[in-house]
Amino acid sequence: LSDRFESLDYDLVENTLLLKEEAQQTFVRVNRIQTQKWFVMFLIGAVVALIADMVVIVVDEISEFKYGRLRDLFDRCSTTSGDCLVQPLGLWILMNILPVLIGSVIVVYMSPAASGSGVAQVKCFLNGVKIPQFLRVQTLIAKIVGMVGSLTGGLAVGKEGPMIHIGAIVGAGISQGRLGPFDFHVFENFRSDAEKRDFVSAGVAAGIAAAFGAPVGGVLLILEEGASFWNQSLTWKVFFCSLVSVFTYNSIIGVYLDRPGDLSNSGLVNLGVMDNMSYLVYEIPIFLLMATFGGLLGAIFVSLNVWLTAFRHKHITSRVARVLEVVLIAAVSATVGFLLIYFIDDCQMMRDVTPQRTVQMLCSDGEYSTMATMLFQTSEKSVRNLLHDAPGTYKPITLGAFVIAYFFLACWTCGSWIPSGQFIPGLLIGAGWGRLVGIGVMRLMPGVSIDPGRYALIGAAAQLGGIVRMTISLTVILIESTGNITFGLPIMITLIVAQWIGNWFNSGLFDVHIKLLRVPLLDWEPPPLSSHLTAKDVMSYPVYTLKTTESVGAIVDLLHKVTHNGFAVVDEGELRNPLSDEPDTFGQMRGLILRSQLITLLQAKVFDQRLDIAAVRKRLNIQTFRDAYPRFPSIKSLNVTEEERRYTMNLTPYMNHSPYICYLTTSFPRIFKLFRALGLRHLVVVNNRNQVVGMVTRKDLAKFR
Amino acid sequence: LSDRFESLDYDLVENTLLLKEEAQQTFVRVNRIQTQKWFVMFLIGAVVALIADMVVIVVDEISEFKYGRLRDLFDRCSTTSGDCLVQPLGLWILMNILPVLIGSVIVVYMSPAASGSGVAQVKCFLNGVKIPQFLRVQTLIAKIVGMVGSLTGGLAVGKEGPMIHIGAIVGAGISQGRLGPFDFHVFENFRSDAEKRDFVSAGVAAGIAAAFGAPVGGVLLILEEGASFWNQSLTWKVFFCSLVSVFTYNSIIGVYLDRPGDLSNSGLVNLGVMDNMSYLVYEIPIFLLMATFGGLLGAIFVSLNVWLTAFRHKHITSRVARVLEVVLIAAVSATVGFLLIYFIDDCQMMRDVTPQRTVQMLCSDGEYSTMATMLFQTSEKSVRNLLHDAPGTYKPITLGAFVIAYFFLACWTCGSWIPSGQFIPGLLIGAGWGRLVGIGVMRLMPGVSIDPGRYALIGAAAQLGGIVRMTISLTVILIESTGNITFGLPIMITLIVAQWIGNWFNSGLFDVHIKLLRVPLLDWEPPPLSSHLTAKDVMSYPVYTLKTTESVGAIVDLLHKVTHNGFAVVDEGELRNPLSDEPDTFGQMRGLILRSQLITLLQAKVFDQRLDIAAVRKRLNIQTFRDAYPRFPSIKSLNVTEEERRYTMNLTPYMNHSPYICYLTTSFPRIFKLFRALGLRHLVVVNNRNQVVGMVTRKDLAKFR
Ligand SMILES: Nc1ncnc2c1ncn2[C@@H]1O[C@H](COP(=O)(O)OP(=O)(O)OP(=O)(O)O)[C@@H](O)[C@H]1O
Ligand SMILES: Nc1ncnc2c1ncn2[C@@H]1O[C@H](COP(=O)(O)OP(=O)(O)OP(=O)(O)O)[C@@H](O)[C@H]1O
Ligand SMILES: [Mg+2]
Ligand SMILES: [Mg+2]
Repeated sequence: LSDRFESLDYDLVENTLLLKEEAQQTFVRVNRIQTQKWFVMFLIGAVVALIADMVVIVVDEISEFKYGRLRDLFDRCSTTSGDCLVQPLGLWILMNILPVLIGSVIVVYMSPAASGSGVAQVKCFLNGVKIPQFLRVQTLIAKIVGMVGSLTGGLAVGKEGPMIHIGAIVGAGISQGRLGPFDFHVFENFRSDAEKRDFVSAGVAAGIAAAFGAPVGGVLLILEEGASFWNQSLTWKVFFCSLVSVFTYNSIIGVYLDRPGDLSNSGLVNLGVMDNMSYLVYEIPIFLLMATFGGLLGAIFVSLNVWLTAFRHKHITSRVARVLEVVLIAAVSATVGFLLIYFIDDCQMMRDVTPQRTVQMLCSDGEYSTMATMLFQTSEKSVRNLLHDAPGTYKPITLGAFVIAYFFLACWTCGSWIPSGQFIPGLLIGAGWGRLVGIGVMRLMPGVSIDPGRYALIGAAAQLGGIVRMTISLTVILIESTGNITFGLPIMITLIVAQWIGNWFNSGLFDVHIKLLRVPLLDWEPPPLSSHLTAKDVMSYPVYTLKTTESVGAIVDLLHKVTHNGFAVVDEGELRNPLSDEPDTFGQMRGLILRSQLITLLQAKVFDQRLDIAAVRKRLNIQTFRDAYPRFPSIKSLNVTEEERRYTMNLTPYMNHSPYICYLTTSFPRIFKLFRALGLRHLVVVNNRNQVVGMVTRKDLAKFR
Repeated sequence: LSDRFESLDYDLVENTLLLKEEAQQTFVRVNRIQTQKWFVMFLIGAVVALIADMVVIVVDEISEFKYGRLRDLFDRCSTTSGDCLVQPLGLWILMNILPVLIGSVIVVYMSPAASGSGVAQVKCFLNGVKIPQFLRVQTLIAKIVGMVGSLTGGLAVGKEGPMIHIGAIVGAGISQGRLGPFDFHVFENFRSDAEKRDFVSAGVAAGIAAAFGAPVGGVLLILEEGASFWNQSLTWKVFFCSLVSVFTYNSIIGVYLDRPGDLSNSGLVNLGVMDNMSYLVYEIPIFLLMATFGGLLGAIFVSLNVWLTAFRHKHITSRVARVLEVVLIAAVSATVGFLLIYFIDDCQMMRDVTPQRTVQMLCSDGEYSTMATMLFQTSEKSVRNLLHDAPGTYKPITLGAFVIAYFFLACWTCGSWIPSGQFIPGLLIGAGWGRLVGIGVMRLMPGVSIDPGRYALIGAAAQLGGIVRMTISLTVILIESTGNITFGLPIMITLIVAQWIGNWFNSGLFDVHIKLLRVPLLDWEPPPLSSHLTAKDVMSYPVYTLKTTESVGAIVDLLHKVTHNGFAVVDEGELRNPLSDEPDTFGQMRGLILRSQLITLLQAKVFDQRLDIAAVRKRLNIQTFRDAYPRFPSIKSLNVTEEERRYTMNLTPYMNHSPYICYLTTSFPRIFKLFRALGLRHLVVVNNRNQVVGMVTRKDLAKFR
């Protein structure tokens, strides 16, 4: 486990200051805070949607321009000799490299936390682990720019993962009433890890809602991935936020698409409405086989990617190398695309049902190249085409070659230093081989009318399920984004089977990356066969404690000496039982105090010996601690004079006077459940006389897997 | 709060016996138990679906026969004079009364717990409150028979509520491996409240899945209503169970409907697939108005029903009266139906788009009575017709009169002594006035082509949302059962607004009934402005405690004297601090023991003075306690001789040696969260030296609202 990661303080510090504030609480105030919460939820939904709109419009316009130029160039070439292909190829590569370069440079040099999809990190955050830099404003900017770069650069990536990350940042940012260095002094009540978590959840749901037009799916993903802390009133707020997001997104995109007022769009990742589909019982076994295949392929994808990540970790360490790798990927993507078009003979006659925007390429007049058509558009449109195009649009060889090439490209791109989502690539690969299966079934049963599009849908589900291993939320997301409910049942079955199969070999993509980062994540349930362990076995010992009235020097020294963030506050001496064979105790348990609180107290110089101590105490309220959140200065930056070191501080009013505790005999699973259910950070272990004997934190639990 | 209700023990008792069992645990065993769990989930899903199939087929056949006869009789009459209407009316009343009588008698005399919908009780159970008789086999039988009775009797009820209850019973029954008095000695590991809860959740989800063809909706309802205890692996199992249920249900119903292999049905409550619907932005305000109206009407429904329940509670107390009331409702239902048909002139010309199975009644030849057509079928089919029939099928006067009559009938029926669901009546009322609104909009905007069916859908959502006040799950259920996702967004908005408006006036139907039952339910969050309360204010004092080695006589006497279910186990005497101003303590905290454990120990006569005590101790393992679950004998039925009373029992190996505790200073919200998150039943309050000073149970918390 890595030491880079600290936990979040989801547990409210219950001290005299808080109780004083609560005592002044009135119904009016409670209502005002509630109203503020709903308002912030509204803002989050709207802002996330606006960003999504912006991204989608910019990407659309640039892609339109780029692929339009390429289509023209290539089409002009087909009439003359083959040599003239070099120039358009060069342009293609250039047009791939340029935006990717910009995106990658910004990410690598400005905010490395913006690379990748961000889903894994969101998962960690909701689990209670702080990811450095993850929720900063510059990360947001880098993510947006990088995302536009990777999308317009034609990489094998999607925009949903980044949208989730963007949602999280927006949620955190708006609720804290701060923008980078500026403090607007609004929503100050929400400045705590626990409150922030709620808004981040809402932002994530809004991101998914905007990305897939899937408000319910967004809420479910939070439930499925994040939340043991869930409650009903939060569910509603998050749901509301998702709705606002979908609404805003659709309203604006409706105007952009010249259909103002039509709200029936389905999100950023518009998979198109699949109507009139039905399936029969004999198709279920085929779906099951496809699910198995998807699970296998997903497991291979994950394994390859793990290997690649390890390789990157070792060999691609300098910033320049990181940027160069991304540029290389962009160039290779274009080249592979070109080779596919060049070597695979897949000219199709123009027909009524032919897709729009065909490319002639090397085909004769009146024909078009399906491969080029598929490549000269955003991946998301390709998915849509694979789901919806009429039977006979694609040759098996085209699909096969495309799937293989795209599989490796997607696998390579995933984890490189640029924002990238894995949902769309997963769907695209799956839709490709799914459609291939559909063509096979059509050939085997010539009599029956079969729509290969529905096999593409099942394939897409199987492949994505095999890679990311989410079940319920993914079902709902797919249902919502295809607008087809009839296929809900087979999609669910496919996803469950794909997940089962995949889990035989490894964990899902996000989990694997979390493990590689060595994040101290707590699983849903305690590891099996851990019940023989007790608090005694897992706790840290000895414990660093502070006395209820402690000398300033001792506090400063302790904070310098250790990196721990929580300290038991004790009364010393009394009631020790010298005859017992229990471990030594460190005093009578009185409370728990956090490093951040100590630092705030030292900053405010709340020393008992000051002459104006009464006034200082009076000025100090719970808001002082909230204002300092979340970036408490380090102990090194504090100035404490020699004289002050001899002063004392009374910690009693500030410590948490009723922290959760456990006994020496408490079993590991019980401690685990306590941590998981209550989002704890520190748990003090006491003996039978309530004397401190040990300390348990997340890292002590996460060690056992 | 009523004393009738006890809490469930969701917290695992962690004692030496459990640890001994856990120490023998191997991976193989863990896997076997997991496999068993999946298998039980499969069984639950399948059985629930089979029951649903059976009910739907029986009800369909009987209704078909009943309404067929009535149609014939009435049609024959229209050709002759009006007098001949008396005979068919009499038959109608009779055919209503007969099945209702049977159902009601069985419910009232055999199992009163089977009356009503059962949703409120399921909610209580998931919250942690044991409802007497609620999960028994005879309740299941009474529920099924009563449900068939109320449905074929033409009452204004639906079958989804009862299906939820049936699901819960099946879940509890199968997982316990018992059927009434028979013990099959299977799944013995699942004999505890915590495990049972998981299976009951799954059963409930399966019930919803079968009822609405909504597997996702089922899982969501559990999440929304039940579960702070949720975790991912359970989500998957419940989801699997729901899928099995939908699958089984659809396969069999497919055979019944002569479409074997077609799995695209949508459940018991088949609302029909709504295709080709879209909506425009200007319709949103109309939907919002409808939502407001639905919320208001829902609040009125709830208030009326509360008044009625109070009336029933006072005046309809004898069994005979209860049966008679239900019979009266059945007779009035038929009479009101007849009067509607007789007095409302709504003859329509037969057209292409005319519904099937029309009734001519008093209309001239070539015409049919829409009112009679609407009444001579099950309510569920009426909902479907209102959603799908072509514009112009219904006259406003017909809809208006129907809605008013049905509103009062449904309100009257709800809470009477027969199984009844409120979902379908809610949908039907809403669909009725929703269609009325649709007709109004059509008249206002003659140019635009408007389908009144979609207003019926929004009306149905608004009305149901106004009555039951569920949001996300209901959205998904409606989406899944209409098979239309495009309307997801407006449905959600409608539901949220309806809930808001309704909550201004009162709580949802189920919550109100829970309050009337005086169940000690714990809300999602601590009541506002409760933070000034601490453990000291809410705890019970003095505490009944037992010594670690306690005389049998004292134990028996204590169990006779008080009805409490949990007792702190203490070491006496030492370490008392006479100078402190803290409340008296009751000894040094050592553990917690439950009444049920004490009774099992007394039954097994684990007395220290027995000669064969070593052998007895050896025989006693954790399975002994599981076997006794859940019906522990009362203390009165135990025989303890005078000599045995002088023996002692060592409670140390059996007590929970690390129960959750809290301090005197712990605030009420903190205690509340602990209870809610961990599903606690008893919380011992200790002072700073870990000495017992108080006891908190669910009732102490639920008092504060
Ligand atoms: N006050 C303390 N005294 C002794 N050991 C401690 C104390 N606090 C934490 N530990 C132990 O130190 C190890 C590292 O914990 P760490 O210092 O990272 O805790 P933390 O920073 O307070 O919490 P987190 O890292 O989860 O935010 C753990 O094994 C933990 O049990
Ligand atoms: N051992 C005890 N000693 C003293 N008071 C107790 C004890 N157990 C419960 N109480 C108090 O008695 C009141 C009624 O509790 P009750 O006897 O119903 O608890 P229970 O039956 O153990 O738990 P539940 O009713 O939730 O199943 C509560 O106010 C509770 O605090
Ligand atoms: Mg740390
Ligand atoms: Mg009780």
